[in-house]
This record gives sequence, C-alpha cells and structure tokens, in this order.
Amino acid sequence: MAGRKPGRPSGDTGTRDAILDAARRQFGDLGYQRTTLRGVGQRAGVDPRLVLHYFGSKAGLFAASVELPVDPSVLIDRIFSGPPEGIGMRAAEILVGVLEDAASRRGFLALLRAAVADPEAAASIRGILADRLLLPISRQIGGPAAETRAAMLSTLLVGIAIGRYVIAFEPMTAMPREQLVRALLPVIHHYLFGDWATGTPA
Amino acid sequence: MAGRKPGRPSGDTGTRDAILDAARRQFGDLGYQRTTLRGVGQRAGVDPRLVLHYFGSKAGLFAASVELPVDPSVLIDRIFSGPPEGIGMRAAEILVGVLEDAASRRGFLALLRAAVADPEAAASIRGILADRLLLPISRQIGGPAAETRAAMLSTLLVGIAIGRYVIAFEPMTAMPREQLVRALLPVIHHYLFGDWATGTPA
Repeated sequence: MAGRKPGRPSGDTGTRDAILDAARRQFGDLGYQRTTLRGVGQRAGVDPRLVLHYFGSKAGLFAASVELPVDPSVLIDRIFSGPPEGIGMRAAEILVGVLEDAASRRGFLALLRAAVADPEAAASIRGILADRLLLPISRQIGGPAAETRAAMLSTLLVGIAIGRYVIAFEPMTAMPREQLVRALLPVIHHYLFGDWATGTPA
Repeated sequence: MAGRKPGRPSGDTGTRDAILDAARRQFGDLGYQRTTLRGVGQRAGVDPRLVLHYFGSKAGLFAASVELPVDPSVLIDRIFSGPPEGIGMRAAEILVGVLEDAASRRGFLALLRAAVADPEAAASIRGILADRLLLPISRQIGGPAAETRAAMLSTLLVGIAIGRYVIAFEPMTAMPREQLVRALLPVIHHYLFGDWATGTPA
C-alpha cells in the first residue's frame, strides 16, 4: 500500500475522500493516539504530506473524518416542533432511541472513546458537538441560560451511554427502554425548563 | 531493569506490593491496552510469571491496582446519616465535591478512561464500582428498585465528569459550583426517591 503513487484517486475530491475514508478506518482500528498522518496516507495510497496539506493536523483530520451517524438537526427539529408540552417526552424518547440503535450508538461511543483517550481529540469533539448539538439545541431553547441547559442535557446522554453500554452496570442494562424514558423525562424537563439555570434558586 | 532477580522485595507481601506499584505506574503511563504483564514485571524487577501467579490476568492485576482516591463508604455514610430531608443536598454537594477535587477527579477519570478504552478493563471497573459504590448506595436506599436508583445516580456522576472535565463544554466549565449543585439536586432526588423506578408511572 505504501508503494502506491500519490494522486491515485482522480482529482482533488477523490484524494480528499480517499484520505477521509482511510482516516475513518485507521481511527476506528487503532484509536486516536496510535493513528498517524503517515499511516493514513499509506492506507489511502497518497503521500502523507498531502494529508497534512488537506487537513492541517491530526486533530483537523479527525474532525473532518467524524461522521455523526444521525443528523442531530433532524432530531432536534423533531423534538422542538410539535406541541410544546410534548418536548420533554420527545426528547427522552429520541435520546434513548439514539442510544438503543446499534449504529448510532457505535458512532456516538466512538466519539466518546476518542475524547476520553486524548485531549487533542477531545478539543475536536468539543467543537463538533458544540456546533452540531449544543448550539442548535440552545437556539431552540432560547433565553440567557440556553447554552448551559443544552450542555446539561448532553451530560445526560453521555452518562447513560457510558453507564448502560460501556461500563454496563447490570441494573442499567436490565432496565426496559420505557422505564429509562420514564426515568429521564423529569430530568430533561428540569434541564430544559427548571429555574436552576436562571439565578433564582428553586 | 529486566535483569533484576525475582524476589528482590522481601517476602510475598513485598513482591505483591512492588508489582501493584509498578502496575499503577504502567497503567497510568501507557493506558490499559498497552500495559503488559511482562512490562509490569520488568518495572517491578520480578519475573513476569510471578505477576500472573499473583493476579491471574491483566484484568485481575488492573482490578487489584485500582486505588479509589476517596473511600466511597465514608462519603456514602456522610450522605445517608443525618436528617433524611438533607440526603439530596448532601449527595449533590459530595458528588460535585469529588469531581472538583483534583486528586479524586484524576482517580475517577482514570477509571473511566480505562473502561472506555477496553472491554476487559470495563468489566473489572464494573465489578469495583458495583462493590464499592452501587451496592453500598443501594443498601442505604433500600426497596426493590434500590440498585436501579443507585445505577442511575452513577450515570449522573459519569456524565458530569466527562461533560465538565473531559469534553469540557464551555457552558459546563463556566458553571459555578453552587449552580451545578442546584442543577443536580432535584435530579438526585428524583433518582433516589422518584416513582419512575417502582413501576407506577408518574
């Protein structure tokens, strides 16, 4: 593979796509820390300097290679359009649904794995999640504490993801989906609408 | 180092302690996956077969080498002794306090890092946290859903740990400690005492 000539895929887009594809596989196989620009270049059959040229750094390559398995904007629209009194329930069901679906869970856990393994990856992921998850949610929530509310919601997703599927505490894995939704509903409501965020103590 | 003779520390306990000490440093420096029984043996100056003899496997060595930076039983006692109406507030303050303290946060994040990086480490950590955190908490809570309640509480700790200190979302890192306590208090109350866990929908 290392012997292939640079530029094998036709044109700029082809090269860029080949690099991204190789990067996804390398990050997936080796994790963030052990993936190198050289290794990605070799896997893509291009000169490693091209990888640097297109993406600037390993963190840049990582950020570009992340594919969110679900489009958050679609889910966020689904939560916030429709009757306002159903926002909490739709959010709880979608949050649990994203984690119960094998493909989207795998994608989300891959992000968490990279973030936890490496501060550089964590910075990329912070940017990605801020742009695609926290900001759109906080725009929907509105008000001065909207970003803090969105951030607290995201900690809920992270905690359940790791507790139920990574550490896999037995009582968590045994919980029926509907019970989990029921457990999360008032918490989501509190994070979205509670007065903890606005400076007036409850 | 590899050349040192086995048994340099005096007696069984000395050898065992030297291995554990070397294991802590190897797991800390290299992470779970890249740590090997051979490397730990070399660092401890003992025959790697002794490592296997004492701890059975890498997962066993890891479990034995984990030192919780705070003794959960002391904290759990502090939460549940005293006036019952203050349980939620004491739990919220202790949860936030454990994460705000640099040493205990470092220890807890090291556990999470290992769990997320490797399924074998995750299984060890599941056992450790179940014995030392979930079981004692669920004993204090009592009732048929006590373990589920304790598990949900632990996801809160995990989510805040990663959201505030690892991914470090800006609105999370900017939250004053008292606001975080205020945000968590009703959630802790709900996980401890809410009727979501008992089969009667709210």
